[in-house]
Amino acid sequence: MWPMTSFSCDLNSDSGESFGSWTMGDDAAMMGIVTSANIACGFHAGDPSVARATLRAATQQGVRVGAHVAYPDLAGFGRRFIDIAPSELTDAVIYQTGALQALAQVEGTQVAYCKPHGGLYNAIVHHQPQARAVATALHELGDLPLLCLPGSVVAQEAQKLGVPVFYEAFADRAYTPEGTLVPRSQAGAVIHDPAQVAARVVRMATEGQVEAIDGSLVSLRAQSICVHGDTPGAVALAGQVRAALEQAGVSLAAFV
Amino acid sequence: MWPMTSFSCDLNSDSGESFGSWTMGDDAAMMGIVTSANIACGFHAGDPSVARATLRAATQQGVRVGAHVAYPDLAGFGRRFIDIAPSELTDAVIYQTGALQALAQVEGTQVAYCKPHGGLYNAIVHHQPQARAVATALHELGDLPLLCLPGSVVAQEAQKLGVPVFYEAFADRAYTPEGTLVPRSQAGAVIHDPAQVAARVVRMATEGQVEAIDGSLVSLRAQSICVHGDTPGAVALAGQVRAALEQAGVSLAAFV
Amino acid sequence: MWPMTSFSCDLNSDSGESFGSWTMGDDAAMMGIVTSANIACGFHAGDPSVARATLRAATQQGVRVGAHVAYPDLAGFGRRFIDIAPSELTDAVIYQTGALQALAQVEGTQVAYCKPHGGLYNAIVHHQPQARAVATALHELGDLPLLCLPGSVVAQEAQKLGVPVFYEAFADRAYTPEGTLVPRSQAGAVIHDPAQVAARVVRMATEGQVEAIDGSLVSLRAQSICVHGDTPGAVALAGQVRAALEQAGVSLAAFV
Amino acid sequence: MWPMTSFSCDLNSDSGESFGSWTMGDDAAMMGIVTSANIACGFHAGDPSVARATLRAATQQGVRVGAHVAYPDLAGFGRRFIDIAPSELTDAVIYQTGALQALAQVEGTQVAYCKPHGGLYNAIVHHQPQARAVATALHELGDLPLLCLPGSVVAQEAQKLGVPVFYEAFADRAYTPEGTLVPRSQAGAVIHDPAQVAARVVRMATEGQVEAIDGSLVSLRAQSICVHGDTPGAVALAGQVRAALEQAGVSLAAFV
Repeated sequence: MWPMTSFSCDLNSDSGESFGSWTMGDDAAMMGIVTSANIACGFHAGDPSVARATLRAATQQGVRVGAHVAYPDLAGFGRRFIDIAPSELTDAVIYQTGALQALAQVEGTQVAYCKPHGGLYNAIVHHQPQARAVATALHELGDLPLLCLPGSVVAQEAQKLGVPVFYEAFADRAYTPEGTLVPRSQAGAVIHDPAQVAARVVRMATEGQVEAIDGSLVSLRAQSICVHGDTPGAVALAGQVRAALEQAGVSLAAFV
Repeated sequence: MWPMTSFSCDLNSDSGESFGSWTMGDDAAMMGIVTSANIACGFHAGDPSVARATLRAATQQGVRVGAHVAYPDLAGFGRRFIDIAPSELTDAVIYQTGALQALAQVEGTQVAYCKPHGGLYNAIVHHQPQARAVATALHELGDLPLLCLPGSVVAQEAQKLGVPVFYEAFADRAYTPEGTLVPRSQAGAVIHDPAQVAARVVRMATEGQVEAIDGSLVSLRAQSICVHGDTPGAVALAGQVRAALEQAGVSLAAFV
Repeated sequence: MWPMTSFSCDLNSDSGESFGSWTMGDDAAMMGIVTSANIACGFHAGDPSVARATLRAATQQGVRVGAHVAYPDLAGFGRRFIDIAPSELTDAVIYQTGALQALAQVEGTQVAYCKPHGGLYNAIVHHQPQARAVATALHELGDLPLLCLPGSVVAQEAQKLGVPVFYEAFADRAYTPEGTLVPRSQAGAVIHDPAQVAARVVRMATEGQVEAIDGSLVSLRAQSICVHGDTPGAVALAGQVRAALEQAGVSLAAFV
Repeated sequence: MWPMTSFSCDLNSDSGESFGSWTMGDDAAMMGIVTSANIACGFHAGDPSVARATLRAATQQGVRVGAHVAYPDLAGFGRRFIDIAPSELTDAVIYQTGALQALAQVEGTQVAYCKPHGGLYNAIVHHQPQARAVATALHELGDLPLLCLPGSVVAQEAQKLGVPVFYEAFADRAYTPEGTLVPRSQAGAVIHDPAQVAARVVRMATEGQVEAIDGSLVSLRAQSICVHGDTPGAVALAGQVRAALEQAGVSLAAFV
């Protein structure tokens, strides 16, 4: 009987993206909603004290933490592609993860996974040398699990090296019939209606499917759902997503 | 009989201070001379790939490695005092040490101690809040040993917290009768004659004494002797120091 | 007859302090209130595009612009003292001012003065070598006018070199009977009541006096009054200050 | 009669690429050889004091100076492509040029042209939006002349906007029969024999031709020849090039 089945879902969100005197997002609020927090490591955002405070908040709320590694690009918030040499990228990922790991230990937790950020996240969907470089770093870090987009080249590279791979779906993004994201430049790429977003997420978690932009059903294999946290509206939306999942009997738990 | 006594001495040197396309020092040569390498962590010098290459060279030569933590100041090479808040300094030391630790692990070694660099090194000789901040970081990092100047406030603060403290003497610096360094601004502060430097170091290692600038003898309790490595001449000098120590029957070994 | 006298007053505010993806303050709102805007030059805040957008907004509102030069310290928002060498400080001030000047020209305006920021502002109240360094930069920049705290060492140094000096008072800060600012660490240092702030500013502008924290009257020679703009509440306060000045018959005009 | 014809040639070199405590190249030596110096503006290399010292050396030797603008990338020495937004690139070029211009004025000279550096130089050979962005900056800077590779998209974009365009050839690089550079990854891309380099440069200057890698003759329209200055060997080579040009009766003069 269907209701006997138990569904579980992870909600992840970027956090720790303030920097020095500048704030971004509402980490405190998001820590009460998500089960996994991708914490900036100082290369695109964050600084040692911001990271530590975010790790403390995560620990207090029982939220899993991951290293949100990025290109070295504070001015561009890590959103711009940088043609960094693969070996330098590998070392940069290890450096960032290690820095966060030390702060995590001090706060009584540990870095449980790595999710690349922004321009790097997008590049390693297809850029083989950089994808390989990131996978190599995670392998060298003792096979630290990777959270990434389904179908990414980085997922293949990670799997070749024995790095555990987990996938994420996006709560508020439209999908193509092929299961890829509708580019932000296209109309309808982002779904703004909270009720619609919540219903889609419940369907992702309980049926493993999402309605594509053309109305067809697409199967999505994702262990985590990404919710945004960098605007007050986003926090409310994330809260509604969580509430809808709980109401649908989906248990919220970190994917790793 | 006196010559039966066995003496042991550590030689430490700053290393990994290249940055991107800029090089500094001759790390490869120094790794064949010193027993402990203070490796830049990217805040005053170094970058992830420079640090990793330096860690690899140290591992290959069996050299112990320490985190050469600094103020965030590439433009000033970490030599300028920065009035950073103590809690931010603590977090910055943990961040740098963790980053280096991850790279060290990947290279098959580990960070065995911490030696603050430049402006920070000098500040925490007397600046109590920053000294306390550094000591707190080392305590939180699991009582990572500290290498510092004898008589430093940071040594007292570290000891209060149970952090192991080791002292260093300087091969080519003149000492006051009180056992402090003659300021660089004063004539005779730096000793340039290699034979004299070598003789002084042998005396430090075998007698625990150094002749002060006024000719008096000062006792120096130091577990390590710092040699500079950032000029070709310095490499030769360091080599002569090591040779003189070996000739005097002093065994070279890391202090920790 | 007293009301025949015409009073004029400048209101200045820090602006252009966003950086990359991070925003700070409400520059658009403040440009409708102030007569002089101190624009960040990229060393403590701001970036080329933020600076340009701020210069455009200033030009559109007829607001005078000044270079808000700072220590190189994005992570610390320029608030921390840095023991930078005087000659390097001079060159850094010229660099920042020149960068802003080129952007200003492109936007049809020009840098009319320089107001040091944060930690540098505070340091050159008393730090003679850095004060001299800043004054030297302004002299070399063709005697660019300086906006600073009355009684600052930098004012003396600037005057020695022939650099025009202007003073500012603070709308919401308490003063000692000696006319210096009550340190922020002391109770009552910041005045929060909008009506009181407005009344004080009107008195400063029309009588050249302010009531000190002990109730005595202090004379203040200031050509400009600094209002803060980095919180929504601050914008409202600044608007009230301007309205009160206008109601009191004080004409608002840039000091230079 | 042929010897009656007078030939003139500009030699340009990158300079001011030291940064803080790190040195690169031998600017002092190169200033006695070249006629135009491309001076780093702090984004890929250089800092305010390095730039100023380089400008002073150029002024003393009567060398023309240009702004060697770059991506914001000290860690990568500006050699990596960065997918920066065009409007931000425009503003970054204006910022860098303005900063250098202020330092130049203080040293009694002025920025006479702009030569993009490294990754940016290579990108705008073909990347239209970034090429347009750089051209726009130079146009907004009062049609500051551009020095670039013949056949670059940036040259077309600059010409559309009325920005004066000058071309450079490379003393030690092999050319294809089509007149483009042989990629560095290919054998024979860089010519190391000083005599051969000198002979090629003389031919470029007096005949406007160069022998391509397949032995065919290619016509080269270049107003300046680029010589490298970042190694001691390069300085000697540059000196030989200059000597050969002078011996061939070619007068050395800045192109603008």
